[in-house]
Amino acid sequence: MDQKLQVYNSLSRKKEVFKPINEGQIGMYVCGPTVYSDVHLGNCRTFVSFDVIYRYLMYLGYRVRYVRNITDVGHLVGDVDTGGEDKIAEKARLERLEPMEVVQKYMNGFHEMMKIFNTLPPSIEPRATGHIIEQIEMVQAIIDNGYAYVKNGSVYFDTIKFAKNNDVYGKLSGRVIDELIAESRDDLKNQDEKNHPADFAIWIKAAPSHLMRWNSPWSVGFPGWHLECSAMSTKYLGKTFDIHGGGNDLKFPHHENEVAQNHGACGCAPANYWLHTNMLLMNGKKMSKSEDNSITPPQLFNGESKHISKSYSPMMIRFFMLQSHYRSTLDLTDEALLAAEKGYKRLMEGNKTLQALNYAGKNAAGNLDKEINDLIDHIFEEMNDDFNTPKALARLFELVPKVNGLKAGHLSFDDITAYTLDRMKSTFQVFIFDIFGLKNEELATGGGNGAMDGLMQLIIDIRQNARANKDWDTSDKIRDTLGALKIQLKDGKEGTTWTKD
Amino acid sequence: MDQKLQVYNSLSRKKEVFKPINEGQIGMYVCGPTVYSDVHLGNCRTFVSFDVIYRYLMYLGYRVRYVRNITDVGHLVGDVDTGGEDKIAEKARLERLEPMEVVQKYMNGFHEMMKIFNTLPPSIEPRATGHIIEQIEMVQAIIDNGYAYVKNGSVYFDTIKFAKNNDVYGKLSGRVIDELIAESRDDLKNQDEKNHPADFAIWIKAAPSHLMRWNSPWSVGFPGWHLECSAMSTKYLGKTFDIHGGGNDLKFPHHENEVAQNHGACGCAPANYWLHTNMLLMNGKKMSKSEDNSITPPQLFNGESKHISKSYSPMMIRFFMLQSHYRSTLDLTDEALLAAEKGYKRLMEGNKTLQALNYAGKNAAGNLDKEINDLIDHIFEEMNDDFNTPKALARLFELVPKVNGLKAGHLSFDDITAYTLDRMKSTFQVFIFDIFGLKNEELATGGGNGAMDGLMQLIIDIRQNARANKDWDTSDKIRDTLGALKIQLKDGKEGTTWTKD
Repeated sequence: MDQKLQVYNSLSRKKEVFKPINEGQIGMYVCGPTVYSDVHLGNCRTFVSFDVIYRYLMYLGYRVRYVRNITDVGHLVGDVDTGGEDKIAEKARLERLEPMEVVQKYMNGFHEMMKIFNTLPPSIEPRATGHIIEQIEMVQAIIDNGYAYVKNGSVYFDTIKFAKNNDVYGKLSGRVIDELIAESRDDLKNQDEKNHPADFAIWIKAAPSHLMRWNSPWSVGFPGWHLECSAMSTKYLGKTFDIHGGGNDLKFPHHENEVAQNHGACGCAPANYWLHTNMLLMNGKKMSKSEDNSITPPQLFNGESKHISKSYSPMMIRFFMLQSHYRSTLDLTDEALLAAEKGYKRLMEGNKTLQALNYAGKNAAGNLDKEINDLIDHIFEEMNDDFNTPKALARLFELVPKVNGLKAGHLSFDDITAYTLDRMKSTFQVFIFDIFGLKNEELATGGGNGAMDGLMQLIIDIRQNARANKDWDTSDKIRDTLGALKIQLKDGKEGTTWTKD
Repeated sequence: MDQKLQVYNSLSRKKEVFKPINEGQIGMYVCGPTVYSDVHLGNCRTFVSFDVIYRYLMYLGYRVRYVRNITDVGHLVGDVDTGGEDKIAEKARLERLEPMEVVQKYMNGFHEMMKIFNTLPPSIEPRATGHIIEQIEMVQAIIDNGYAYVKNGSVYFDTIKFAKNNDVYGKLSGRVIDELIAESRDDLKNQDEKNHPADFAIWIKAAPSHLMRWNSPWSVGFPGWHLECSAMSTKYLGKTFDIHGGGNDLKFPHHENEVAQNHGACGCAPANYWLHTNMLLMNGKKMSKSEDNSITPPQLFNGESKHISKSYSPMMIRFFMLQSHYRSTLDLTDEALLAAEKGYKRLMEGNKTLQALNYAGKNAAGNLDKEINDLIDHIFEEMNDDFNTPKALARLFELVPKVNGLKAGHLSFDDITAYTLDRMKSTFQVFIFDIFGLKNEELATGGGNGAMDGLMQLIIDIRQNARANKDWDTSDKIRDTLGALKIQLKDGKEGTTWTKD
């Protein structure tokens, strides 16, 4: 296969052949979560999407340095002892809200959720609070280059001047600078300090009640939100690196301002390829708590939501996510989840059947052989076409009837080679587990020690004997107990298999 | 129970009644791991010890802010682009060793291991690299107070001057300043810059090849090792907090220098109580790779070491650790592990039996009632005596024969009240799971869904019927399969129970 990987670059708005800066190596930065609340399902979709991209790039043989940040500079306020002399305030430190305690809680929860969704940890997971010095240095560089100004201890990026001197601003988000000026808003208090509405803060003087604060040449304050990604991507991947990813909603202002900051500080673009994931919808609409149209990952897993008819396992949800392309919206509905669940089980059972097939043919390559090999080639072609997971999955599904046909004898091993059977086996294994990052949940509940499998095989054997001996008491007892445990048996030609809800 | 918690304070070398600075709240700082290699078993013992202390303090009703740091400032060297103008070096950033990638790998591994040992995450887990500004500020404060001096871009703590002006230095480690002067060594290169051998670096100018480096008022460099704990404990717990913990080996120079730094910067002692865990030995000697006398946690879990005859589960190892007091050395030998395994199973089975007991008495309190209540009181007394887990465990074990006696009928429910049975049940549950932090590994392998338990009960029932019907084929098949799966059945008066290796 000499196909080349193509990725859709948000910057050029077209698919481009992917070419890394350093041969064989890729630097990839993805905007991570803000850890001031539980991670949203939409964020999970973004991180699962980039997990598959990360896995596929590694599968292609690249050494990938994958950096995903933790935004832990928050906006919690409380009583701050300003002087350091107030002994009572000092003594009572434990009684005050400590932002880092909040951060730790939600960061742990985020890591737990990423593990539940079976995403690989990034190579480096830098935290915004851990890189204040680097951010201060970048602010200084931007000031030195004339693209930022200081007002009352805060520092603002001079968007207007930057836009005039560089044909860059607005390129990523497709906004025109004049429009930006008209529509730009800023949530920060010090709006009136800015020379222009399109300017944005890169260092903010802390109000007395602001809990997170550091010394800087301009004030005791904290960095502007967009700055951390510029500073940390530069530190760990270089001034210009290969891939920058994130959710669509970050395109503006976050990524647009990131680009401006990097140009302003280093005089070059941060990333060659910008990849953006699309939104997760529910029942055709944007998820919204206030409109009672939202669901959390735990609710999906335990089924406790009026929006779904049953619980869905984490791997099922992951599979569901992969059934849409990362650049398409994904509409979560109960019907779609039920359909995906069926598909997920069909895929996993197809693979189980496939792996159990023993080659029994004459090693001759017929039409079937070509058909199977073409389908396998197509899987890679789909993935090389901007990581098209739904189409790659569709190709895998086209192979399942071949597997079942070979098993049932409708199709003949005489029409394929042993090599082709092996290739099909390894392709399924590699795609399902290594690239799509799914895992066998049956095995998982068995603690990975196969005890569940062993016990089930014993029970299946006992049931078979009981039926043969017309010992209905025993077979009824087995049926009832397995039912209570939500374990289903399926009798087939090749024996009985089991699945568990 | 009006017993008061007593803790052994390394600073006073005696047990003291514990009195927190703020009523109902505790600030506790424990020195965490250096994440430049896999975590050692000895470190695991320290963190398990403080996990039990943390759990017990919370059980007593305290709100505990538990801070445990990550030491991620390492000493990796490589090629550094010094100018920022070397475009080739800049382009090749991905090819260089990135210390943070190493850090991330071992930090993830550490977190994984802490989860395997079922330790609770600390409230805040600050990283040294995330607090460079705070460390720089502390260096400045120490300089301002006259207890540090600058030499060629590095900053040294003036131990001699500090010791003369403060009757503090040496108190914790029991060293006399004159001896210190004689014996103090320093691993750092710039030794000759120091005014005195007992002085130590708090900021170190980075050699050109040093990869981790930050701007400071004195040089591009990195903080001295002892500094991070002073800076981070002050930030998150206040200048003076309740408990400072760590391994015995950290007493000197790390903790001694920490005390000096805090006094030097803030003019007060960091912690009121210093708690130190003792060493983990193996076969009576210090663990040592070079002397082929060492074992890793994974080796313990998979049994692949010549020093042990079989594998041991994480919870078994945790139980083994609790069988020694945290201030005693713990000698790991295969015999001790085998004995502990038996004890662990006896405790867990005793609890299983206890929880299944139904009260069947006349609610009269006899001698047995008093005996059981006294034993329960003793458990708490032992824990209040400097967290004496081995003695608390011994008391639990003294209760097991009572449980078995009640079950078998040797002891009569008529001699205890329903309240006492309930108290015994809740005490076992609370101590085993909440305070000692053990968990039921049988359940754990069943994925927490009880499927394993359910299947095993079905198999036990079928076996019983088969035996009654003299269906030896079936009962033999069950015996053989369970044997292969390393599941043991134990027939007792009250039915058959099962355990799994």
